[in-house]
Amino acid sequence: MAEMPRPLDALNNARGKRVIVELKNKAQYVGKLNAFDIHINVVLDDAEFREDGEVKKRLGTVFLRGDTIVSIAVE
Amino acid sequence: MAEMPRPLDALNNARGKRVIVELKNKAQYVGKLNAFDIHINVVLDDAEFREDGEVKKRLGTVFLRGDTIVSIAVE
Amino acid sequence: MAEMPRPLDALNNARGKRVIVELKNKAQYVGKLNAFDIHINVVLDDAEFREDGEVKKRLGTVFLRGDTIVSIAVE
Amino acid sequence: MAEMPRPLDALNNARGKRVIVELKNKAQYVGKLNAFDIHINVVLDDAEFREDGEVKKRLGTVFLRGDTIVSIAVE
Amino acid sequence: MAEMPRPLDALNNARGKRVIVELKNKAQYVGKLNAFDIHINVVLDDAEFREDGEVKKRLGTVFLRGDTIVSIAVE
Amino acid sequence: MAEMPRPLDALNNARGKRVIVELKNKAQYVGKLNAFDIHINVVLDDAEFREDGEVKKRLGTVFLRGDTIVSIAVE
Amino acid sequence: MAEMPRPLDALNNARGKRVIVELKNKAQYVGKLNAFDIHINVVLDDAEFREDGEVKKRLGTVFLRGDTIVSIAVE
Repeated sequence: MAEMPRPLDALNNARGKRVIVELKNKAQYVGKLNAFDIHINVVLDDAEFREDGEVKKRLGTVFLRGDTIVSIAVE
Repeated sequence: MAEMPRPLDALNNARGKRVIVELKNKAQYVGKLNAFDIHINVVLDDAEFREDGEVKKRLGTVFLRGDTIVSIAVE
Repeated sequence: MAEMPRPLDALNNARGKRVIVELKNKAQYVGKLNAFDIHINVVLDDAEFREDGEVKKRLGTVFLRGDTIVSIAVE
Repeated sequence: MAEMPRPLDALNNARGKRVIVELKNKAQYVGKLNAFDIHINVVLDDAEFREDGEVKKRLGTVFLRGDTIVSIAVE
Repeated sequence: MAEMPRPLDALNNARGKRVIVELKNKAQYVGKLNAFDIHINVVLDDAEFREDGEVKKRLGTVFLRGDTIVSIAVE
Repeated sequence: MAEMPRPLDALNNARGKRVIVELKNKAQYVGKLNAFDIHINVVLDDAEFREDGEVKKRLGTVFLRGDTIVSIAVE
Repeated sequence: MAEMPRPLDALNNARGKRVIVELKNKAQYVGKLNAFDIHINVVLDDAEFREDGEVKKRLGTVFLRGDTIVSIAVE
């Protein structure tokens, strides 16, 4: 039987790609996935902050604390 | 006495099937269950995001953080 | 002195019976208790989803994440 | 010096007595304290569910998840 | 160098004294501090429940779950 | 390379000084920092409780549970 | 294969720089990153507190409890 995929494999596959990170407060950060850990703390490069689908702010590198995150998907 | 079933067995049986994941913020993600772990972090393939029963967005693969999840059921 | 009962014994006695699971968001899932674990993650078979006492949806098997659960009682 | 009392001693003394369990959502469950554990998961027998001081529902045995509980007192 | 005081020392000093316990939901329990543990689960004797500064209910002994507590001070 | 400072060093430096502790519910406790631990449970002496910048109540010694705290700064 | 970057590396790179720390309650603290730990407890020097983008208060050194933090980015 083949080894089962694990959720962090999907994040690993997304490294270096632009991802959309949706937060519990409905805001979104979009940027290149630089790093993550088992708490789902995440670092994005060339990040932008969006609210209601609109870019509100451009940031360089941003650290997002895992427990505020709902979802992560490649853009 | 037969061994008792465990909750993660049900998720295991749902692997590769389309599941509805309901979040604490009432939104739903529907997609093919690719992976999960003991924190109930979940990865869906061919996912779509629904609000109020309506498809709002199609995503490829999405990672959902376990602590935002209320329920998971095969569609 | 007799051994003291533990809360999970009550869930064990409810296995295979129809139970009402009340969630923090006030919704209820009713179904046959198939499995639970120490996090109170729960799997119900032949489940239905109720809001304000009304059946809103019938599901087959549903996985409920423990930290969203308030109470579990045999119907 | 006498050994210091611990909070769970008080719950132990309440075993078999009718207790009022107050939840974070303001609802109350009243019933005979059958079991508890270190997470303060609790099982009540001959339980009733009260809201705004009024009995809304009678249940047999009910399992209450610890992290929803504010207080427990003998009735 | 003298040993540093720890927060639980202050609770220990309050044993047997009447304390005001303020909860996250703004309610207060006042009573004689009988017991506490590292989770800040607390047991009060001769307790009363106050809302908006008014005594709403007298209870004998009450167990308060630590994660609902904001502050504890000697009355 | 010099050893890196840790967050608790800053609290240690504040021992014996008057600090402002801001809570998640927006209230503030101001007092002399007597003790803290790794959960950021805190004890203040000669404390006062402020809401909207106004002193609402003077307390002697107060114990504050760490998980309700947002920030701590020397006054 | 090169070693993978970890989220705390990004915080380490930000030491000594001015960072914007965004909290769950929408407030922001801006200051020089002095220290952090694995809980993402953070200490800022020469800090200021901003609400709605406006400086509301200047503080010297401030300790921020990790579980209130959403994001950290170099200003």
